[in-house]
Order: sequence, then C-alpha cells, then structure tokens
Amino acid sequence: MATIRLAVIGLGKIARDQHLPAIAGDEGFVLAATVSPDNAGVTGVPHFASLDNLFAAGPAIDAVALCTPPQVRFDLARAALDRGLHVLLEKPPGATLGEVAALVAAAEASGSSLFTAWHSRYAAGVEPARAWLAARRIDRVRIVWREDVRVWHPGQDWIWQPGGLGVFDPGINALSIVTRILPRPLLLQDALLSFPANRAAPIAAELTLQDTAGTPVVMDLDFRQTGPQSWDIVVETDSGTLTLSSGGAVLALPGQSRHDADREYPALYRHFAELIAAGRSDVDVAPLRLVADAFLCGRRVEVAPFVD
Amino acid sequence: MATIRLAVIGLGKIARDQHLPAIAGDEGFVLAATVSPDNAGVTGVPHFASLDNLFAAGPAIDAVALCTPPQVRFDLARAALDRGLHVLLEKPPGATLGEVAALVAAAEASGSSLFTAWHSRYAAGVEPARAWLAARRIDRVRIVWREDVRVWHPGQDWIWQPGGLGVFDPGINALSIVTRILPRPLLLQDALLSFPANRAAPIAAELTLQDTAGTPVVMDLDFRQTGPQSWDIVVETDSGTLTLSSGGAVLALPGQSRHDADREYPALYRHFAELIAAGRSDVDVAPLRLVADAFLCGRRVEVAPFVD
Repeated sequence: MATIRLAVIGLGKIARDQHLPAIAGDEGFVLAATVSPDNAGVTGVPHFASLDNLFAAGPAIDAVALCTPPQVRFDLARAALDRGLHVLLEKPPGATLGEVAALVAAAEASGSSLFTAWHSRYAAGVEPARAWLAARRIDRVRIVWREDVRVWHPGQDWIWQPGGLGVFDPGINALSIVTRILPRPLLLQDALLSFPANRAAPIAAELTLQDTAGTPVVMDLDFRQTGPQSWDIVVETDSGTLTLSSGGAVLALPGQSRHDADREYPALYRHFAELIAAGRSDVDVAPLRLVADAFLCGRRVEVAPFVD
Repeated sequence: MATIRLAVIGLGKIARDQHLPAIAGDEGFVLAATVSPDNAGVTGVPHFASLDNLFAAGPAIDAVALCTPPQVRFDLARAALDRGLHVLLEKPPGATLGEVAALVAAAEASGSSLFTAWHSRYAAGVEPARAWLAARRIDRVRIVWREDVRVWHPGQDWIWQPGGLGVFDPGINALSIVTRILPRPLLLQDALLSFPANRAAPIAAELTLQDTAGTPVVMDLDFRQTGPQSWDIVVETDSGTLTLSSGGAVLALPGQSRHDADREYPALYRHFAELIAAGRSDVDVAPLRLVADAFLCGRRVEVAPFVD
C-alpha cells in the first residue's frame, strides 16, 4: 500500500519523546507536516501554527496524530475527520465521553479510520499477560500507580484543569492495561478522590472495582510519590501470581520473568497503519468510562494545596 | 401475542404513583408479582422480599420493571437478564455507565429485551416538539429545572449518596428530553456543581453545552427552589420560540399552545411491550453520559449544608 502522509498535531513532550521516533522508524508513514502554535517544528518538515493553516497552505496529508492536551483535541479531530483524514488520538481520547461518541459518528460519516490509541496496551508484557490469564481463575487484582508529578509532568498545568484528569492521566494507562488483560469487563464500586484545595483535578485516588464475575480489583493512584516509583499490576490466580511492572514492560510469572524490548509506540503506529489499510476503526472508551464513573460516584476529600 | 407476566421490583413512590397504574391499564401486561424488602405488596398479587425469593418460590414471569434506587439496580437487572427475562430500567439506567454497558452485553447474551426507560421522553409535548424543531434552524437552548427537593424527594436519602446524582436525578429528565428533541448530539463544555458541605451529591448545577454544530445550550438546575417550580426548555429558532414546560407536558409554539393528556408511563409500557414482541432492545446512555461528563470535567464549589 501507499505510504501514509501523516501530520503530527501538538509537539509537546509525548510527541517528541515517542511519536516522532516511532513514525521515523515505520516505513508505512512519512511525516508530511507538523502543527503547533508555540513550538518550532522538525527540521526539513513543513510546520504550521494551526491545523487551518495546514489545510489552507500545506502539503496533502492522509492522516493526523493528535498529541495536544485532551481539552483541545475534539475540534481538531472533528475537522480532520470531516475532511476524510484518518485520526489517531493520544490517550485519553477526549475530554468527555460525549466527545468520543461524536467522533465515532464523524468517522462513520466520512469513512475515515479512528483510533483511540491506548499506548500502554502495547507494552511488552501486556499481550503475554493476557494470554496467560485467559486460561486461569483470577482471585484478585491490585494496581499501584504511584509517581512524582513534578518529575513526570513538569509544568503541565493542563493536567490540573477541568478535563485534565489529574492523577488519572497516568492512572488511565493502568486502566487501559487491566481492561485488556482481564477476561471480563470491570465495574466501579467505590472511589475516594483526593483534590488539592487549589486544583480542579485529583492528586490521588483509591478505587474499588469488580469484574462482572465479582472478582475484586483495587487501585491505588498517587501523584505525590517520591523515591521509588510504582507502575505495577499484581494478579493472583489459581496458578500463582502474575506481576506486570514498569507500566507493563516487565512481566513476572511463577518461575519466570521476561522483559522484552520497549515497542509501545512503534507497535501502536503499526496498528494504525493496519487499520487504515483495512478501512477499519479501533475505538474503546472503557478506560475513560471507568474514570468518568469514578468521578460520577466517587467521594471527594480535600487535601493540601499543590504548588508545582 | 401472549400477555407479558411482569414483576415490579422496588415499591417506592415512583412504582406506586406511576408504574402500577400504567401496568393495570395496559392489556399487554399482567402484574404477576411484586418484590420489595420493606413494603407491603399489592392486594391479590404474590409479594416477595427479594428477587431470589421470587425466583425460588414465585410464579413464572417474563419480564421485570426495576424501580429501586439506582445504586442497587445492577445486580437485580443482571440476575433477571441471565434468566432470560426482559428488563425495564427506571431512569437513570445505572449508577455508572459501566453498569449499563455490562447489562447490554448480558441482554445480548440471553436474547432478552433491555429498555432504558427515560419516562420524560413520553411526555405529551416531546414528540411534537421534536417534529417542529427538525425543520428549523436552532439558535440557542435554555433549560431551567428548579424544584424543591423537600417536596419532591422527601426523605429520599439515596439521592444524596454517591451514585444518587443529587439534583441530576430530576435534571437527567431534562437531558433525556433535549437529547430527544434536538437534531444533533450534545457535548458538555463546562459545568459548575454545588455540593452541600454534608452531602456527596450536588444540590445545584450550571451546565454549558453545545450541539455538534456549535449551537449553545445552557442548563440551570437547582433543588433549593421554593415557590413556583420550573421544568422548562426554551428553544429559540429562526421561526420563533418553542417552549416546553411542566416537564414536557405543555408545548407552546409561536401562535399556539397545546397540553395533551399525560400519557408518560402508559406510553412507556406500550413501547416496552412492542420491544418484547419485536425481540429488540432500546438502550440510550446519552443523558447519563452527559451527567458523567459534567462530573468528570466540572468545577465544584461547596455550599451550605442541606438538612432534610
């Protein structure tokens, strides 16, 4: 098939750290343009201050990857879909669930491929974990996602704004993994959300969930972790304990441990190319729906102000 | 077709005020049993303290209507669907969106009809409003839903619990109407939620929404209204103003006003009977999704404690 002419919209940390190298390493794509209001572009690639400018004066493109903060993603995604372009959405796929539903309708209307890209699902340990769990009785699951927001999200004020999700911005990665590796859907039972007195998004959360067979799943999220960081999922089964750590990269099973090379974003772009070739979309709102359910039903406590 | 043998689960205010009379007036249904842990039943109808007791010792039934508070509805609905029974869910259809998604899967697995019953959509003015608006340019929409919680929800403590939705319990009726009468989907833009210091659910809310063409929609919800009550939707169009008041019962169009007989629950049960006859489900999460999006993205302020 023809090479996909791709524009990357939003040139922040995730675009430069992950998207651009993955695109450069995939023969199915050529980086045809970049868009960002306040960044320089990439040497040798046409750069535009807005998507409208790209549409008006830029090269022809087939697809866009949206790497902006979630609050501004919807209008960009819809403009792209309405022009028949294929769209990859960084996670979370929208600031609201309604936005994602509207994008699905727009993609169906234009015949474009829409991909809600949950990058953590492509971590090396995830598919082996899923395969191992499929044949076992699962007794309980514990998720611990504790990181230092000052290290991982320095100056990212959008994360604290309404729709920025706070500690669920990394936490939704864990939810994207467990909704992939566990064989049954998850239901939120209870949530305790800790909001800094000066912020509109939570800095920590404790979630109690169950799968549809009643298996208990607990989740401990905290942005205030200093020292050792934790991105771990522990699943107790009738055949012993599975531990997925380092955000899904390292898988430990009874009697064995494996740590394959990190291929998250390369695998994600390969899947996007396959979706476009097949004329299909891949949309899953389950991780964002669990977060929305936690906000909908959760209890809220106020904690110390957070100053970046 | 054969008469549908129906059990009503949860005999609170809404069941006695609305469901039982509607069922009694529809030849397609026979009230075969009632279930409630702490109420007397209905004269001449077998009554059970739990759904399990009904399954163990009760008469054969074809369908259930779930009129309990939303927080306990999921397990009951799934138990009924897993036995192949058809299920009508009072609004809201679940305490979380994940619950509704899981019920859809359970209904598909068992071949049962699942009906998320948004009763306000059957108010007399709703379908004429929808037909009138379909042919017009809509400029703006204003929703005012202000009622005295002490009058309409006396002692209903569940409404203040997590998952009880607070002022969105009536407000979701307005959302169920506007998502029916407006021609395009709605997206939440902003929300301000007022929480009493001693409660886990909002007592008032201001929502800013847009439809997918950018039409502004504002919503003003308040549980603290004394004196005149308001359940009004005002739609300004290129052909003048449409006003739907009294919760959808009264429709005023330029030069005319109509107030047809209240047929909400009778119409709702007629639709349920038709779904069962056709082997279909009717599931729409849009109103609950908008509420979840408001909690997800909304800003929150603390207001005076509420004492019932």
